[in-house]
Amino acid sequence: MTKKRLREHGYSVGHLPTGVHNCITDVAQVRVGHTTLKEPSQGILTGVTAILPHSGNLFQEKSTAAVHVINGFGKTTGLIQVEELGVLESPILLTNTFSVPAVTEGGLRWLMDGNPDIGGRDGTVNVVTAECNDGQLNEIRGLHVRPEHALEAIQNAQSDILPAEGAVGAGTGMVCFGWKGGIGTASRRVSVPGLSGHIGSLVLTNFGAPEDLTILGVPMADLQATPSPPSADGSVIIVLGTDLPLDSRQLKRLAKRATFGLARTGSIAHHGSGDIVIAFSNAHRQPHRPETPLLISRRIAEDGRMISLCFRAAVEATEEAILNSLFMAETVTGKDGRTVPALPREEVLKRLRKHKEPNM
Amino acid sequence: MTKKRLREHGYSVGHLPTGVHNCITDVAQVRVGHTTLKEPSQGILTGVTAILPHSGNLFQEKSTAAVHVINGFGKTTGLIQVEELGVLESPILLTNTFSVPAVTEGGLRWLMDGNPDIGGRDGTVNVVTAECNDGQLNEIRGLHVRPEHALEAIQNAQSDILPAEGAVGAGTGMVCFGWKGGIGTASRRVSVPGLSGHIGSLVLTNFGAPEDLTILGVPMADLQATPSPPSADGSVIIVLGTDLPLDSRQLKRLAKRATFGLARTGSIAHHGSGDIVIAFSNAHRQPHRPETPLLISRRIAEDGRMISLCFRAAVEATEEAILNSLFMAETVTGKDGRTVPALPREEVLKRLRKHKEPNM
Amino acid sequence: MTKKRLREHGYSVGHLPTGVHNCITDVAQVRVGHTTLKEPSQGILTGVTAILPHSGNLFQEKSTAAVHVINGFGKTTGLIQVEELGVLESPILLTNTFSVPAVTEGGLRWLMDGNPDIGGRDGTVNVVTAECNDGQLNEIRGLHVRPEHALEAIQNAQSDILPAEGAVGAGTGMVCFGWKGGIGTASRRVSVPGLSGHIGSLVLTNFGAPEDLTILGVPMADLQATPSPPSADGSVIIVLGTDLPLDSRQLKRLAKRATFGLARTGSIAHHGSGDIVIAFSNAHRQPHRPETPLLISRRIAEDGRMISLCFRAAVEATEEAILNSLFMAETVTGKDGRTVPALPREEVLKRLRKHKEPNM
Amino acid sequence: MTKKRLREHGYSVGHLPTGVHNCITDVAQVRVGHTTLKEPSQGILTGVTAILPHSGNLFQEKSTAAVHVINGFGKTTGLIQVEELGVLESPILLTNTFSVPAVTEGGLRWLMDGNPDIGGRDGTVNVVTAECNDGQLNEIRGLHVRPEHALEAIQNAQSDILPAEGAVGAGTGMVCFGWKGGIGTASRRVSVPGLSGHIGSLVLTNFGAPEDLTILGVPMADLQATPSPPSADGSVIIVLGTDLPLDSRQLKRLAKRATFGLARTGSIAHHGSGDIVIAFSNAHRQPHRPETPLLISRRIAEDGRMISLCFRAAVEATEEAILNSLFMAETVTGKDGRTVPALPREEVLKRLRKHKEPNM
Repeated sequence: MTKKRLREHGYSVGHLPTGVHNCITDVAQVRVGHTTLKEPSQGILTGVTAILPHSGNLFQEKSTAAVHVINGFGKTTGLIQVEELGVLESPILLTNTFSVPAVTEGGLRWLMDGNPDIGGRDGTVNVVTAECNDGQLNEIRGLHVRPEHALEAIQNAQSDILPAEGAVGAGTGMVCFGWKGGIGTASRRVSVPGLSGHIGSLVLTNFGAPEDLTILGVPMADLQATPSPPSADGSVIIVLGTDLPLDSRQLKRLAKRATFGLARTGSIAHHGSGDIVIAFSNAHRQPHRPETPLLISRRIAEDGRMISLCFRAAVEATEEAILNSLFMAETVTGKDGRTVPALPREEVLKRLRKHKEPNM
Repeated sequence: MTKKRLREHGYSVGHLPTGVHNCITDVAQVRVGHTTLKEPSQGILTGVTAILPHSGNLFQEKSTAAVHVINGFGKTTGLIQVEELGVLESPILLTNTFSVPAVTEGGLRWLMDGNPDIGGRDGTVNVVTAECNDGQLNEIRGLHVRPEHALEAIQNAQSDILPAEGAVGAGTGMVCFGWKGGIGTASRRVSVPGLSGHIGSLVLTNFGAPEDLTILGVPMADLQATPSPPSADGSVIIVLGTDLPLDSRQLKRLAKRATFGLARTGSIAHHGSGDIVIAFSNAHRQPHRPETPLLISRRIAEDGRMISLCFRAAVEATEEAILNSLFMAETVTGKDGRTVPALPREEVLKRLRKHKEPNM
Repeated sequence: MTKKRLREHGYSVGHLPTGVHNCITDVAQVRVGHTTLKEPSQGILTGVTAILPHSGNLFQEKSTAAVHVINGFGKTTGLIQVEELGVLESPILLTNTFSVPAVTEGGLRWLMDGNPDIGGRDGTVNVVTAECNDGQLNEIRGLHVRPEHALEAIQNAQSDILPAEGAVGAGTGMVCFGWKGGIGTASRRVSVPGLSGHIGSLVLTNFGAPEDLTILGVPMADLQATPSPPSADGSVIIVLGTDLPLDSRQLKRLAKRATFGLARTGSIAHHGSGDIVIAFSNAHRQPHRPETPLLISRRIAEDGRMISLCFRAAVEATEEAILNSLFMAETVTGKDGRTVPALPREEVLKRLRKHKEPNM
Repeated sequence: MTKKRLREHGYSVGHLPTGVHNCITDVAQVRVGHTTLKEPSQGILTGVTAILPHSGNLFQEKSTAAVHVINGFGKTTGLIQVEELGVLESPILLTNTFSVPAVTEGGLRWLMDGNPDIGGRDGTVNVVTAECNDGQLNEIRGLHVRPEHALEAIQNAQSDILPAEGAVGAGTGMVCFGWKGGIGTASRRVSVPGLSGHIGSLVLTNFGAPEDLTILGVPMADLQATPSPPSADGSVIIVLGTDLPLDSRQLKRLAKRATFGLARTGSIAHHGSGDIVIAFSNAHRQPHRPETPLLISRRIAEDGRMISLCFRAAVEATEEAILNSLFMAETVTGKDGRTVPALPREEVLKRLRKHKEPNM
């Protein structure tokens, strides 16, 4: 069965309309790029994924941002400064756990190249790098990802198209509910009279016990997963982007809603799962050196209508992004010849159709 | 159709076994009591619910505790000190939003009565009171709940029996997904070799948009709810109790998992919903005046097995408690003659049976 | 020796200029009012202090706000919602620990009186009440402060004049470093080209071990304090107000700087001290019901110059406000005939002059 | 004037006794090591400092730990997991801002070397690396610190002796209040009947505006600092270690007290200062793979006496450690021939003696 996104099988998630491509790049100017390292014979199945919050100079024009830690068993770096200042001034880089240093150094070099005064007159720069442990399929101790792979992922980043999903980029070696996981994405369009925009979600999935997988409310516990099911400890990184003007406090509220989408796929945030959400808005760009003592900014009025629509969009897009990461991943064989199978789509669809009619 | 708990209709939630009564009082020594104020002709439909963490002197023998704020649009009091010190030294009192002061004063008086040195040699005491807004059915501006109603709820508290659920105590005037909500509870028994105990959940439900209600993964969006559906803004209070030795950091991790149970009922934590979790363990009791400079305590080893079981128990018990609050609430008429109907159980069960076979 | 504020003795704190009255009411529109309950023969020495963030309808036009918990051994209420929404919609009410419920109910009634749709169409309202334990001088178990005392303090609130300091309002029965403490206030004026405004601090002081008191860097450990020095456990509430446009994240950063002013007076934030900071800006007022989906707001550019000036102002004003609370309090006798002496100003000034020349 | 620690000049800080060497290695088993990179002609003035919490296998026997962010303008890594799990399983590594990736990778390699199952059966490992920006003296864009320098610092680590202070290790290129700063340390011994132990502080100082420097309460604003005073934005990293059994919540409370010591040196935590505290206790060591479902642990009773002594120790040791970093640093010349002078000790002592008599 050819791999197709969930929606191509006739099933939607939630009530809200998607963006044009149903992915995070539906958010104006957002770009996504991958570098995939795939040499199964050497046990190398890993990579880097870069999300660029807009098309300008990310350091000189900082995006608004916030983070939420669902379960902090993780090594994501750069979060403290995002929390303090409410801005993102780098790409968001995703990779495997032990490659965070190399990828962060790669991001740093790229930012220094584009901003000669970083490290001098412009002070320092904060690189955000998040991770999951792909050690089940990838020889993670080998530290195969190097700084140049981060540069490559950044250079590969493109806007306005659906990024590759599944076993690609940082998702190359990830495992989700015992099946091959990786990268997934989805989006929602939200609007009220006088205002509209997108909320996009991109996830790196590497979590979940096989018996917990739930698709659109239907339990998939009886699917025959990997012969020796892996630990449920893993991680998921959830990146939310929007072109709506949310300030950092509002983005933090948005980030917290990703948990609700995650929960509906069956996750209980196992002890060892590093579940992290990073949310950004590119509607405002804060200059590195403001020329005036005051900045004017817009933010959505928090009277309950639009903000709750945004919350709903984050929930729906995150649930669908996780499911897309499963539907779009192919079976892979990696370290020590270990095979992690793709989600058995026909079996899944059979169960789905038994319980609910396609709604698209 | 007689009101029955979800499980009596043949449906369980999750994989873990329940405690004897499937309620928070399955946790050793935990007691629950209600005071119900119900004078519909005067628009009074409200009350107090008290959860006592153990059967001793709550102030002299403090329980271990933690809190988690899912969405902070709420007026729960006492949380700061629980967060700082990791202990609970009062009953947990639930009531309507505007009655927090009266109920807190009632709790304070009860604690002063039982501890003559409070306010003197023993310093102050921290009363934890949580709330939802029952203003849809109850004339909340009337401040009808007074301190003595809190005392009464505390005195009514009993252990080892299933507490009343639905439109009772603090739940008397609450509305959930457009249907009558209120109090619900459930429990799970968790064990590994050499260690076992209970996790119980008690909820006060007053949240959710009618179109979002999801029961065991089955959407109930098409049920005909209240003619003029209320705002989805509301609140939910979730109290988790355990007789297992979790320390305050572990209880905070547990509290965060309540979100996963909440999410599966359809909540997106609307803007105006004050969603608060309070978790306690009565396995350790910290004396108000320790006699030695060191305290010895046990806590569960956090290697992933038992702690993740506890997380799962919190998720399952919270989802089931919320559903019980709906299944056990009857139609009520309150302020301005407004009627909020009970969940149409037959309709719900018809939809459930269509999608899933009873599993009990 | 007549009581005079620190500055009238020739000593300033820090480098920045003060506002006209050197108090929180230098911040445009901020009002302060006290109710003092003083019946020493009955052991009643307590009260209420109200800080109104602006002169309009506090609920309909919400101030921007943030909180910071230095040490959470305290019963301040209303903080969770301030943290979530970044707004203040009530007066800030200060009182003794056990009167938080009564004072909160008083604040609630005042807000309901002025806003008939609270509890109905306008939803709920969040009242912020903070406290210290005046049980050393006041018969705190008597719950002598009632809701009407809160109303009275609110009605007494005036702008543009120096509020009474020392043993007044909520400060009536408070003790600081073993001397009579209570209410103190100070302000700073900050400006950069194109922008200027005020930062004011008002404190309720009830903390500190006698041996720790430090005034302008000069230790006062050898002053003879109360015969049986009280526990160092106490509390301090610090309210920061500004008419500069800081958003809630910036106000949280500001609130954290209050710790630096507190530290310079000798505090180590004892275990039992509930040290809480509440910061607000009235430069923006968020309407309860926004009429447009977007709000436009200004905030100071966070490039390091103006924001660090604001931080410095918060540090300086808080240190000076605490010292003013000591310099302006008179000796009082309360519960059980216990006397807490005023700071021995002559002795203090003698030591000060020995170590530093007056700088004003 | 030969460089001597503050106390050798006859001045103590606070009331409590120090440990034998008045440094963090007074805490049983704690080790400190430096690697210094010093090639001024190439603009290289930087390094690494490693603090090892105990003498065993740091990963297999995890220390208890907590963090506190005073001001989050910093790139410290590893904090999220410490916050979630309350344990430290790596050395604490200090370096310059842009060398965090290289140093983290070095720490990771060292941990993998000593634990062959990391990355496999033992899962991942969390490396804690903190930083300040030494870009004023060091050509930070050159990324001169490499992973092997971290290994070297770890291998250099020794216990039971006073570590080198001032311009050494990570402190080589740091600037504090306009003078040469770097590494400083101090300790306190705390005891109550039946229990005693040490609290040690080690700081990396790179913060402060020249006009703010305050030594033992005496302002040093009029000292002639660097001709073109640098930005006050900088950072300070504060590491607190203890051999007393504090649990992670208690350590977090301890970490918050470091702010009070920092404040007394004149800091206001400038906007651009990344001020981070990491606190650990090696009294308990949590095994990576617990063999029983329950862990027994001791912690100090939190009745106010011992815990407040610990708080006081953290305040005093941190203030003194910062002052030691200034007293022990020599003048250095680095990038672009820029010279940062040592604290003019004679001038400082002259001012000190004018205001206070030596107390030792």
